[in-house]
Amino acid sequence: MSKSVAIFSRFPLASKLKESLPFIDFIDVKQTDPTPLYTAEVILADYDYVGPHLSKLQNIKWIQGTWAGIDYLKPFIQNDNPPKFLITRTSGENFGQLMGEHVLATMIFWERNYFQARENQYLKNWDKSICSEDHRSLAELTVGILGIGSIGNRIGRTLNYLGSTIYGYGRQEINLNNEEYEHISQYFTQATLKDFLANVDYVINVLPATPQTDNLLGNGILENCKGKNVIFINVGRGNIIKETELINALNQEWISGAILDVFENEPLSKDSPLWEMKNVFITPHISGNSRSRDIIKKFVMNYERYQNNQPLINIVDFDKGY
Amino acid sequence: MSKSVAIFSRFPLASKLKESLPFIDFIDVKQTDPTPLYTAEVILADYDYVGPHLSKLQNIKWIQGTWAGIDYLKPFIQNDNPPKFLITRTSGENFGQLMGEHVLATMIFWERNYFQARENQYLKNWDKSICSEDHRSLAELTVGILGIGSIGNRIGRTLNYLGSTIYGYGRQEINLNNEEYEHISQYFTQATLKDFLANVDYVINVLPATPQTDNLLGNGILENCKGKNVIFINVGRGNIIKETELINALNQEWISGAILDVFENEPLSKDSPLWEMKNVFITPHISGNSRSRDIIKKFVMNYERYQNNQPLINIVDFDKGY
Repeated sequence: MSKSVAIFSRFPLASKLKESLPFIDFIDVKQTDPTPLYTAEVILADYDYVGPHLSKLQNIKWIQGTWAGIDYLKPFIQNDNPPKFLITRTSGENFGQLMGEHVLATMIFWERNYFQARENQYLKNWDKSICSEDHRSLAELTVGILGIGSIGNRIGRTLNYLGSTIYGYGRQEINLNNEEYEHISQYFTQATLKDFLANVDYVINVLPATPQTDNLLGNGILENCKGKNVIFINVGRGNIIKETELINALNQEWISGAILDVFENEPLSKDSPLWEMKNVFITPHISGNSRSRDIIKKFVMNYERYQNNQPLINIVDFDKGY
Repeated sequence: MSKSVAIFSRFPLASKLKESLPFIDFIDVKQTDPTPLYTAEVILADYDYVGPHLSKLQNIKWIQGTWAGIDYLKPFIQNDNPPKFLITRTSGENFGQLMGEHVLATMIFWERNYFQARENQYLKNWDKSICSEDHRSLAELTVGILGIGSIGNRIGRTLNYLGSTIYGYGRQEINLNNEEYEHISQYFTQATLKDFLANVDYVINVLPATPQTDNLLGNGILENCKGKNVIFINVGRGNIIKETELINALNQEWISGAILDVFENEPLSKDSPLWEMKNVFITPHISGNSRSRDIIKKFVMNYERYQNNQPLINIVDFDKGY
């Protein structure tokens, strides 16, 4: 059983981890000298740091990643020969909380036109009319969530608590009577995606990037949203719709706005027309920011399981792609 | 029993009310000819419209107001001789929902620095560092709410659902075991206001304007918040602290920011330094905007009670001042 852990991350983790796990030797690996990785049994790492070294890890049994999406690892993994060791993601409740907060706040700012309030502040302009007297409250919205894993369900449950009607979308048939889906009033799959889009006020994408989700909202399917003041929120991955198709959907007014945290290409190029579109709000992939405190909590929990030969939490399944 | 109702409001109400109460004669009173008010038994009115006419209402039995705060009525009412007729406010769950949404959204934008995200969008600047990696989630905040009536409790319950610890402040001793206060973990009154301020991350004022709340947060008491990154949100009334004292509290860094929807003087004068302060977010008294749909719902409910001689909801108590 390894009593040392290699840390390869931009987050400040080592000293706080030492407080929680005082008998473990934490090795802070520098990018200028990655050799300690090659003999490590356990690594706590950012995926973009560790990715290029995957093939050189001789003794590795477990990598705990510092965030949820494994996109940065994928180029270094052969589909027909997935890793023999475990990779676990930092996912779950904390991202659900943070991404839920992002979704709530941006929806409310959008419905109330509070971006305009901020601009009016600069102009010293007291204008009560910015927030229309019949603006929509969350309680009056039907919100469709693409992806009903832990994050999607957390977002849906919160919106449902605030009064929204929740529609869910996923790959498999599910039992809506299951307690974990009790906030969902209707459920849709690929075969009924058009009905889903035709009946919601918001479309929130939480799906990971997989071959099944590539351009899922492309090929004109967003035309089903037309005429209903639908807003698209993307906190999942930019692969869900090609950027050109998203811009077209906005220009055609199939959807009336987009609140975008993730993009087909990141960072978003300065050439992208999205930056200047009035009906778009852009954040730079920070809706579910990993925070040191959450990474540490997850690592400590998983390390204790590892020591006790218990199954780890959030193991990457390379068949599913996340 | 009156079968006619005079409407004196800037909101478009008559045609939708007719749908709900088809046997009632709704008289749309114009500001150019207010005489129909003088003989009306029931009036649905904006307070600033009806206020100057109060002394001329000969047959009035009940005025339903279109919003919650009666500030605009007070100049026309003698304290030692309050009206003999009923005045009811449009208050309750809808304002709690809307003001709760305002509070949630502005807190989250503040903690994540999303105002900067909007500015960065104009600059086409992809800067992930704006949202600090250890920013606070709602689940990590202790939120103190000044005022634990229906609106304050609704806001508190929602924040508590999202993980915040809730401290309450009110005039009277209450029983925290009462179901309506189950979201409150500690309760404070005037005698313990300093302790309240010394132990919260956010101070949210929901109190109405009354002699008891005049400058309640003035006279330097906000110094108790010093050094703890406390944000003040005001969705109640601007009388809670004099504008000069609020500006001083910000300049002294007793509090680190203010999210202001209401002000000592409204509309906020172009001369006010608040407009230009970087640690202030200003909205023009719209956090709990009355909406036609909510006014209609409340009026229909109260009118049915009125017809059936049942007690009306949200009757103004002139002793309390709201």
